Amino acid sequence: MKPGFDLSVYLVTDPVLNGGRPVDEVVAQAVRGGVSMVQLRDPHSPTRVLVDTARRLVAQLRPLAIPFIVNDRIDVAMAAGADGVHIGQKDMDARDARCMMGEDCIVGLSVANETELEASRDALGAVDYLGVGPVFATATKPDAGEAIGLDGIAWMRAATSLPLVAIGGIDAARTADIMRAGANGVAIVSAIMNAADPQKAAAEFTRAVTDGIKAEERGK
Amino acid sequence: MKPGFDLSVYLVTDPVLNGGRPVDEVVAQAVRGGVSMVQLRDPHSPTRVLVDTARRLVAQLRPLAIPFIVNDRIDVAMAAGADGVHIGQKDMDARDARCMMGEDCIVGLSVANETELEASRDALGAVDYLGVGPVFATATKPDAGEAIGLDGIAWMRAATSLPLVAIGGIDAARTADIMRAGANGVAIVSAIMNAADPQKAAAEFTRAVTDGIKAEERGK
Repeated sequence: MKPGFDLSVYLVTDPVLNGGRPVDEVVAQAVRGGVSMVQLRDPHSPTRVLVDTARRLVAQLRPLAIPFIVNDRIDVAMAAGADGVHIGQKDMDARDARCMMGEDCIVGLSVANETELEASRDALGAVDYLGVGPVFATATKPDAGEAIGLDGIAWMRAATSLPLVAIGGIDAARTADIMRAGANGVAIVSAIMNAADPQKAAAEFTRAVTDGIKAEERGK
Repeated sequence: MKPGFDLSVYLVTDPVLNGGRPVDEVVAQAVRGGVSMVQLRDPHSPTRVLVDTARRLVAQLRPLAIPFIVNDRIDVAMAAGADGVHIGQKDMDARDARCMMGEDCIVGLSVANETELEASRDALGAVDYLGVGPVFATATKPDAGEAIGLDGIAWMRAATSLPLVAIGGIDAARTADIMRAGANGVAIVSAIMNAADPQKAAAEFTRAVTDGIKAEERGK
């Protein structure tokens, strides 16, 4: 059965932005701060390093029932027994990913804007959630497209019923607004991976997400 | 059932060394010159490009019963329905590759020297052939190790019963010697991919391999 997943504070790892600390150490600290989901993103390391890292993260996260997702590399996800994959527009078609990973895994897809959503229409049936952004300008992923802002999140919320996780230049201060705009969570790279205290940074996002949800409920 | 395979002239593609020509066009010409096996090697292109290229090569090579192998990327091999994968020392463990690809596929492993052969001992049961080299110095793969020469091939021939394909800096003039040293074939990148006439270049290797085999038979 497909594991349930909670997009609220979705940590995306980075092999460079860790201040020299091992990825799994930063993840362990962030998890104590309330991270609800973890994605291994590392476009440059050799496959063997990716598989080894992914296996360590599976061993760490599975006992906590925190879903573990691998970016792009379905081979790495399968070898490590990850809970799912996250696919970008230049990665494999989400339907091929679904076909290979099976119905019991989580498939996420990055969709930056209206054009990419339209281009992905035929694949959306294979997808469990959308990654949407960059919401704000970000230095983490220089090749990311133009920032879509809160309006972009609201537009996407109206355009699809899939769960949405917002990504790109998000800090805790802007998280409640992003939730109110219709996101189901925030995907965070540098603001946690690069934090002096990843647990504290994650806890701030966790609190901000809860505040956003409460504000939304009050507004109803 | 696992497809039979003939390592004799094993073309390894390169996304850069094609003189601007599409990979599948160069492969089509090389195949007319007698290439017996083709590997897609492209460590830098996005996954979607790799899958598209791999699918075009499957469509081209399957009707000719020429085995098609993908370097490193088991996800790409599976998505495209390739005949197998070729694994380097920094790629996934060959046993994991076998596990994911199944018994009916071809798994090749690169082994440069005695140290790497020893390090791979436990995985050799999962492997169908070894890629051995660089035999000679090569500019194609600057991170390849020290050239092992004809002696290295002869050493490897004595050390394992697996079929061997020699790689690295090989031209047609040296091919017969490599076959006599104990290789079952030669893996060629630039001497075919970068040739003005890939069909002619492949035909020269095909002839040289046959000469090497004949010379070996005369010597027996």
